[in-house]
Amino acid sequence: MKKITSRAENYSEWYLDIIDAADLAENSVTKGSMVIKPYGYSIWENFQKVLDKKIKDTGHKNAYFPLFIPKSLLTKEAKHVAGFAKETAIVTHHRLMEKDGEIVVDPDSRLSEELIVRPTSETIIYDSFSKWIHSWRDLPLLINQWANVVRWELRTRPFLRTTEFLWQEGHTAHATEEEAETEALKMLKEYQDFVENYLAIPVIAGRKTESEKFAGALHTYSIESMMQDGKALQTGTSHNLGQNFAQAFDVKFADKDGKEKFVWQTSWGVSTRMVGALIMTHSDDQGLIVPPAIAPVKIVIVPVYKTPEEADTVLKAAQALCVELKSIDENTHLDDRDYETPGSKFNEWEKKGIPIRIEIGPKDIANNSVVVVRRDTKEKNSIAISEVVENVKGLLVQMQKDLFAKALALRNEHTYQIDDYEEFKKHFETAAIPGFVYSHWCGDAVCEQQISDDLQVTTRCIPLDQKEESGKCIKCGKDSKKRIIFAKAY
Amino acid sequence: MKKITSRAENYSEWYLDIIDAADLAENSVTKGSMVIKPYGYSIWENFQKVLDKKIKDTGHKNAYFPLFIPKSLLTKEAKHVAGFAKETAIVTHHRLMEKDGEIVVDPDSRLSEELIVRPTSETIIYDSFSKWIHSWRDLPLLINQWANVVRWELRTRPFLRTTEFLWQEGHTAHATEEEAETEALKMLKEYQDFVENYLAIPVIAGRKTESEKFAGALHTYSIESMMQDGKALQTGTSHNLGQNFAQAFDVKFADKDGKEKFVWQTSWGVSTRMVGALIMTHSDDQGLIVPPAIAPVKIVIVPVYKTPEEADTVLKAAQALCVELKSIDENTHLDDRDYETPGSKFNEWEKKGIPIRIEIGPKDIANNSVVVVRRDTKEKNSIAISEVVENVKGLLVQMQKDLFAKALALRNEHTYQIDDYEEFKKHFETAAIPGFVYSHWCGDAVCEQQISDDLQVTTRCIPLDQKEESGKCIKCGKDSKKRIIFAKAY
Repeated sequence: MKKITSRAENYSEWYLDIIDAADLAENSVTKGSMVIKPYGYSIWENFQKVLDKKIKDTGHKNAYFPLFIPKSLLTKEAKHVAGFAKETAIVTHHRLMEKDGEIVVDPDSRLSEELIVRPTSETIIYDSFSKWIHSWRDLPLLINQWANVVRWELRTRPFLRTTEFLWQEGHTAHATEEEAETEALKMLKEYQDFVENYLAIPVIAGRKTESEKFAGALHTYSIESMMQDGKALQTGTSHNLGQNFAQAFDVKFADKDGKEKFVWQTSWGVSTRMVGALIMTHSDDQGLIVPPAIAPVKIVIVPVYKTPEEADTVLKAAQALCVELKSIDENTHLDDRDYETPGSKFNEWEKKGIPIRIEIGPKDIANNSVVVVRRDTKEKNSIAISEVVENVKGLLVQMQKDLFAKALALRNEHTYQIDDYEEFKKHFETAAIPGFVYSHWCGDAVCEQQISDDLQVTTRCIPLDQKEESGKCIKCGKDSKKRIIFAKAY
Repeated sequence: MKKITSRAENYSEWYLDIIDAADLAENSVTKGSMVIKPYGYSIWENFQKVLDKKIKDTGHKNAYFPLFIPKSLLTKEAKHVAGFAKETAIVTHHRLMEKDGEIVVDPDSRLSEELIVRPTSETIIYDSFSKWIHSWRDLPLLINQWANVVRWELRTRPFLRTTEFLWQEGHTAHATEEEAETEALKMLKEYQDFVENYLAIPVIAGRKTESEKFAGALHTYSIESMMQDGKALQTGTSHNLGQNFAQAFDVKFADKDGKEKFVWQTSWGVSTRMVGALIMTHSDDQGLIVPPAIAPVKIVIVPVYKTPEEADTVLKAAQALCVELKSIDENTHLDDRDYETPGSKFNEWEKKGIPIRIEIGPKDIANNSVVVVRRDTKEKNSIAISEVVENVKGLLVQMQKDLFAKALALRNEHTYQIDDYEEFKKHFETAAIPGFVYSHWCGDAVCEQQISDDLQVTTRCIPLDQKEESGKCIKCGKDSKKRIIFAKAY
């Protein structure tokens, strides 16, 4: 197995090495797509479990809509299609044939209308909504879909940006503008709670600028987090769609006052991209670190022995301990493979980021104790067998807290307020860890574009949680009332 | 709402009407694809929950592989591509553009190699297996994927046959032929257990003929069930792939004896088609009937009142009852909508096939009782409040048993042994409910094809659970040792 490149040496390489070392995913023969390997997928399944419950607990119901969207449907909302036109996979034929010993596309199987592989499902879902919604009694309509989507990307990176990715997309319709706005913010809050309390990644919730909003939305909210290299990663978005799609897809309802009105809509989504955020927030040069609250395996027990007699005693004790620890976590794993050395096992589980490793050998058994190793701090303690359950329980809680605190400390350390463009420029040109820069901005897309052209720095979001203050746009000097976060971003 | 066509009048129309009446799915603007509506999807989610546990409990791990398969990869196993070539969706371009005010496919975005939307994932998964497997230590490799797949079908029917459908596909690799065979049969058994004990649908497990086996398999096992119209529906398949794919994809391992060998493989899958089987096995002319073991809502409570004073008392009692019944089923539902009449609620829940309906009104409260209605038998009893939990618990168990017994009785009633071709012919030409005909067959594909041409009757499977007996092929009279099931099929 290849050595993990250190973060200091090459952060991008480190990221890819972690994915490889932890056995999360691999590049596929299908360019731009990845294979999510069993361990990587088990992390995603845990994300799904928590998110699905949150989505259902807030009254949404899952459904499933077609993968293929007829071209005429995708093009109904003009801004929407403009936003996605350049990154679509297009199905044009439906049959292969043999010709001169080769398998080729049968030219006679050309479709009368091309089908677009969904880049997102507003269009196909709202076509159904227009049939489902008749009266105010049908509102709010709260739907969610777990699905794969495809956006044709030229430069891909596992989890962060792949041609095909997995996600959930919520789609709702409401009777009033206020309800839609409340919904968009409510789901943003659910995402924030999930990312902060399960993934242990602190986020800033805010509003996207006009240039950065979703194609077809009235406005877009996002949660933004800071990776260890000081770059921003958008981990979730929630859109207030206003009535744009309702008008394009004729989604109307008879209101209590008897009048026919267009609905107000939202959509919101998070994807396998969050796995990338997880990797880049917590991992170290030895491998992945998975926060206990989301770890598919929280505890791994590694028996250590040399002779067959030792093996017998040690394995028995390890099995008994495993049963006991399953009271904390059903997925406690006893690594009893007899063809791997303890050392290579320690290494493997360290790379996979299992929160707690327990080593048990003849000496430990003689002392009625085991060795407990915490993945993040590498702290190693001998713990009496009788206390191990309580100890591990405490460590898991502590580790979850500490990972969040560490990520928050990093973010605080690399958060700046800058009010002068020269200083701003110098910061982004020279800082090793550029982080989040809070600056005033006039709201004009021209300033935003110039900054992006100058420094490859983008606006992330206008944080929701801030007081108004008077200031001057960092670029043009015009009046501004709020700060926006600028950052280099994934 | 449209009246449900009766089964006697038109079985095909009845099937579509049930889907509509129960709000399970609808046709989509994407030809051949369906929208799975929230209630239909919640049934599928319950299938997934049970199956996913079974798959994991038998040692398999979930993973995710790309939706798109490069044409060159799909064509590596000759029989496999031949089997799927005529029903593939093919991605040829990756960009839309505006031209003369129209959105068209950008001809410059043609892919250098066409991508096939997976009809099944053997090829793309075994490409990974060839990288994952090195030594006997890596075996068995037990993988499962939940995914959408696409097979271009000209004649589609919701759930039974749609261009895109949802399924799970298991893929395993083993060191020996015996292990692969054991695995294929083990997973068939798991499917049988699921379909019989959760969906309450009796099945016959058997082996497919050479003509009916999966494209690229050594042999295919299936479970077959009989619908109310006496037609067969294949509800799951499990394939022993032998070494066909291992050779095509170079999936080799170093065995304990130091020699390099090809692995032995299996694949197996069940899909949203099972929802179709569920509908057609149990439902009646009033609507869907869902077996309690798989019902998203097992119990619905409908309050009945006229005056506001009554409403107050009745709703309070209904709420208290709902809390109590949640001890049996978390998804007990209190239908407290104030804009629908009790009658239309009864009708709606009947159409949706909720196992138990409880009616509670002022008279019931005065008598300290409620009315309990069982969906399948429509049996209606007044039950003392103090006994309702025990009563409902018993009814749910009984209804599950009764649904299976009823389906089994129907199958037994329409199962025949026929040894003479004239009789066989007459049976399939005249029987209103043709059912399963057990006949001898010589094993020759020619006879099989002639029967299919003559009567539109296909071989379903050679039941595993039968004794050898000598007989003569129903078509050609050659010797045969086992009977095979002939049926009209979906």
